[in-house]
Amino acid sequence: MPVPTIEWKDEHVRIIDQTLLPAEKLFVSIDTAEAMWEAIKLLRVRGAPAIGIAAAFGIYLGIRDFAGEDRLAFDRRLNEVCEYIGSSRPTAVNLFWAIDRIQALLKRYEDRPVQEMKKLILEEAREMVEEDNRVCRKIGEHGVGLVGEGCSVLTHCNAGGLATARYGTALAPIFRAHELGRKVHVWVDETRPLLQGARITAFELVDTGIPATLITDSMAAWVMSQKKVDIVIVGADRIACNGDTANKIGTLGVAVAAKNFDVPFYVAAPVSTIDRKLPSGEGIPIEERDPEEIKHGFGRKTAPDAVAAYNPAFDVTPAAYIHGIITERGILRAPYKKSIGTLYDTI
Amino acid sequence: MPVPTIEWKDEHVRIIDQTLLPAEKLFVSIDTAEAMWEAIKLLRVRGAPAIGIAAAFGIYLGIRDFAGEDRLAFDRRLNEVCEYIGSSRPTAVNLFWAIDRIQALLKRYEDRPVQEMKKLILEEAREMVEEDNRVCRKIGEHGVGLVGEGCSVLTHCNAGGLATARYGTALAPIFRAHELGRKVHVWVDETRPLLQGARITAFELVDTGIPATLITDSMAAWVMSQKKVDIVIVGADRIACNGDTANKIGTLGVAVAAKNFDVPFYVAAPVSTIDRKLPSGEGIPIEERDPEEIKHGFGRKTAPDAVAAYNPAFDVTPAAYIHGIITERGILRAPYKKSIGTLYDTI
Repeated sequence: MPVPTIEWKDEHVRIIDQTLLPAEKLFVSIDTAEAMWEAIKLLRVRGAPAIGIAAAFGIYLGIRDFAGEDRLAFDRRLNEVCEYIGSSRPTAVNLFWAIDRIQALLKRYEDRPVQEMKKLILEEAREMVEEDNRVCRKIGEHGVGLVGEGCSVLTHCNAGGLATARYGTALAPIFRAHELGRKVHVWVDETRPLLQGARITAFELVDTGIPATLITDSMAAWVMSQKKVDIVIVGADRIACNGDTANKIGTLGVAVAAKNFDVPFYVAAPVSTIDRKLPSGEGIPIEERDPEEIKHGFGRKTAPDAVAAYNPAFDVTPAAYIHGIITERGILRAPYKKSIGTLYDTI
Repeated sequence: MPVPTIEWKDEHVRIIDQTLLPAEKLFVSIDTAEAMWEAIKLLRVRGAPAIGIAAAFGIYLGIRDFAGEDRLAFDRRLNEVCEYIGSSRPTAVNLFWAIDRIQALLKRYEDRPVQEMKKLILEEAREMVEEDNRVCRKIGEHGVGLVGEGCSVLTHCNAGGLATARYGTALAPIFRAHELGRKVHVWVDETRPLLQGARITAFELVDTGIPATLITDSMAAWVMSQKKVDIVIVGADRIACNGDTANKIGTLGVAVAAKNFDVPFYVAAPVSTIDRKLPSGEGIPIEERDPEEIKHGFGRKTAPDAVAAYNPAFDVTPAAYIHGIITERGILRAPYKKSIGTLYDTI
């Protein structure tokens, strides 16, 4: 079983610093909203569900030391902290989902004293960890039917245990298949520029005893053309109401190749990743990261200083490429506008 | 104008060590067949045409010190050297094209004395440099019609000046368009695992004053989906008689994305890259390189030791994805079996 990615322990938040994996397995204590903002920004904690949880704890840390009993001032301060935490990675919908949850608490308990509110916010963040564990286990159960004996799965980036509180989304059906004793194999895209696949997904799989083969992102089409991949499962950073899915840059290329070589392409994500305000993928803002991540990776200059570089963190895969979206409430199928709509009608 | 990649100078071969680019521009003198074998193996010299020339010089270096006038013994020794040089990169067809040329000399001049043969072999190698320059200029002229004012070209790996003796194949039409005063822009795939795009193509373009933007290989599909690419031009390591093309790993993924997003996909290569003995791409052996190139790139561990890695150096793009093959004798079009056949009928 994977170690917890993020947890509340001895009055602080404990995370694994994922920027150091696989060379070092370092746990870091986070005590302030500023430290959490930085941890999210620098990808020490990453993956949509884990970011949501980190945001909730970050908000708590930002108001933990609020003095006095002025509830109005407290609410004002809390909203400032929410805005601040939201600025760490503006593309991550789970960040705002977490912020919305905390702000809903404010409204629900508008008559409660400041000290009690603090306690309620911490409880909410801790409940989010428990919820995430339940949700990921459910995703694993709903998706495990796609991962039969001898199945070879290709995945991009990391939507494993370390992207969530513990069990993962895209990897959850694989972990579950492994638990059931099925022989499975995973092709791991290394996922440039930050190598979350090579560093994190490969680490998790090896750690759990699941056979995995690392490839560069550019090899995925070739491996699929050789009929060595039975299914692609990736995570999601944000899903629009029509099923268009924003995920780590490179996902679109994998989806296009999968379509071309008739490999079923699935997204696995909690329902919280669906942005109900977003009708289609066209409205998704694409975070552009520092070009130096491409030009100076790995502590070494890999390109001439004078060349420009473009570094979008995400791309958007149109719903037409997606065979299904594996959620904790079952596998959603096209037309997604309808299946996603039904999901909310029955909540 | 780019500096010469490989040339005969002061009784030795001078090459640029491309494994050190862009950090260092180091010229290396090569004096023995063993040093040339290593330079080819370790990609100090790389790119199909440049490898052919390097092989010819390597063969000369291997027999330069042959003593005596026993022509039979000389021929035997020469064939040994050819076999040895051929083992440096068995997938590179230009290696064998160069070996065939030298062996043809042996037959053509079977009555000549050993000392004269040595001179003829050196002259042949030097003529190959001149020929390559003429061929690349011609490729540029035939391809420049595809690269109009304001054109944005995407390329993968390096098929630029440094892949040939001097002027390049895939980059030749771009260099020519630039010479004609056209404003052009190039998207450069970094080309994992060895980053020939980031290190070499980006270096050449910036050096020549052509605007270029570096991306990771995984971004190509996204950039194409955004309609930011007008044409893809890549080189080739080996072309079968039906047009199937082996080129640097990742080329297939680019071709699949180009087809999906309606971007014309061209291969640029000298006619010598066509393997007349090869009816289709299925017969092309795929060189597998050391997995450590993926797991320990850039002088740093990027993946856990325990994970497996697959590292094919090439993939094969089926002819159906290729809009045209730009050669020194014009642009070949589908059906390639016919257009390639016509080429040889009229030699």
